[in-house]
Amino acid sequence: MYKKGKLTVVGAGPGDLELITVKAIKALRDADVVLYDALVDKALLEYADKAEHIFVGKRKGCYAFHQDQINELIVQRAQLKGHVVRLKGGDPFVFGRGAEEMTYAAEYGLEVAIVPGISSCISVPASQNIPVTKRGAAESFWVITGTTKEHKLSSDIHLAAKSNATVVILMGMSKLSAIVALFIAENKTDTPVAIIQNGTREEERIGVGTITTIEGIVENQKLSNPAIIIIGEVVKHRNQIIQIGRQYEYQITA
Amino acid sequence: MYKKGKLTVVGAGPGDLELITVKAIKALRDADVVLYDALVDKALLEYADKAEHIFVGKRKGCYAFHQDQINELIVQRAQLKGHVVRLKGGDPFVFGRGAEEMTYAAEYGLEVAIVPGISSCISVPASQNIPVTKRGAAESFWVITGTTKEHKLSSDIHLAAKSNATVVILMGMSKLSAIVALFIAENKTDTPVAIIQNGTREEERIGVGTITTIEGIVENQKLSNPAIIIIGEVVKHRNQIIQIGRQYEYQITA
Repeated sequence: MYKKGKLTVVGAGPGDLELITVKAIKALRDADVVLYDALVDKALLEYADKAEHIFVGKRKGCYAFHQDQINELIVQRAQLKGHVVRLKGGDPFVFGRGAEEMTYAAEYGLEVAIVPGISSCISVPASQNIPVTKRGAAESFWVITGTTKEHKLSSDIHLAAKSNATVVILMGMSKLSAIVALFIAENKTDTPVAIIQNGTREEERIGVGTITTIEGIVENQKLSNPAIIIIGEVVKHRNQIIQIGRQYEYQITA
Repeated sequence: MYKKGKLTVVGAGPGDLELITVKAIKALRDADVVLYDALVDKALLEYADKAEHIFVGKRKGCYAFHQDQINELIVQRAQLKGHVVRLKGGDPFVFGRGAEEMTYAAEYGLEVAIVPGISSCISVPASQNIPVTKRGAAESFWVITGTTKEHKLSSDIHLAAKSNATVVILMGMSKLSAIVALFIAENKTDTPVAIIQNGTREEERIGVGTITTIEGIVENQKLSNPAIIIIGEVVKHRNQIIQIGRQYEYQITA
């Protein structure tokens, strides 16, 4: 037990149950209470089988709890029971609001800690053999949320379309047309694009095309959220590896 | 044993031994040969205690092996012994040349696979309570290598200085003056900067300042490679958390 309670914000990784760290498992084993999101696989809760489990994610498009309710719940459960683990999909510091929860908890005198997770922004492309950087193809990668606080397209995407970076857009499917238009305006019609739905999970699906063709591909394949958009020359690496695999008559999987 | 051998490119995480995934440990346990870098903690090799261990990193500033020699070694050991694990610091697809090694191995008929790791670009800032994104402070983050193939400053850094992104620069300490100059040219003299050396390791050290002050801080504190440069408003989160901690008279650690 901790005097005033403790919060550990923990990254669960992108979906694949084995992409969780040893440190995250230790935190779960030590937890008295686990607050978890919709993107977290419930099988991970078995590491915390003696803890109380509270679902605080979205259910049928509706939030079970608002952010301020989650903040209050963290403090309340920590004061009552001791160690609260806040288990989040991916990495808690990548669009995860982990920093806000830590600040709130710290203001109430809780001990706070963070355990990074495998972020979907890098690992989901990797699961499809797309490296976010590659010598000669991309010296940098830029990770952007498609949906800002104000529900607008981030102004950073305008600049990203001008850059040489691999552009990785999370939560951007509803803004795909606007994103495509920005890249067309920069004459990047042939830039490769991949869209990966349910990355690293069994139901993972992918569409690959270019700025010009990707919208049609999304429509044909009925791709939707949760999905990640990857724009850049690195997308070609996937085809290269697949073609080599075909030559040897086996499938290359991540 | 695999017919023609197998290569699994595995991310070891940023330094902290517990920031390795279950999947990475499984790959190490199955390995017949492990090729590892200088940034990998040797203690991780204990997971592969029956395998052959080959160091292929830099020693006293010199490469033990050139990249083409590493590629050849992967194929040669896989054909001879079976499963080669290529263990790399951080994530193998973030400036890790993992994609190149996979391509080479696949061309020689090896089965290839990738296991993502916790990348230092996100987790090292996190270890100092700096989130790469934060609502209201940063809607995106841009990860750039300071040293390109041609040993020049990446042109992406020019554009990054104009953006609202949190800018994370790896391998950029020798270019710090040039980087600072680009941000000054954009009137970003007060933008917070943190430099973290040996992130997540016991010997971790940090310097925090602004675009104007950071060079003096680096000199005073004698900060050097391996280090990560983080530029953006999110750096303030660290001070905020530390100040709350002080109020309650305890130290907040990641």
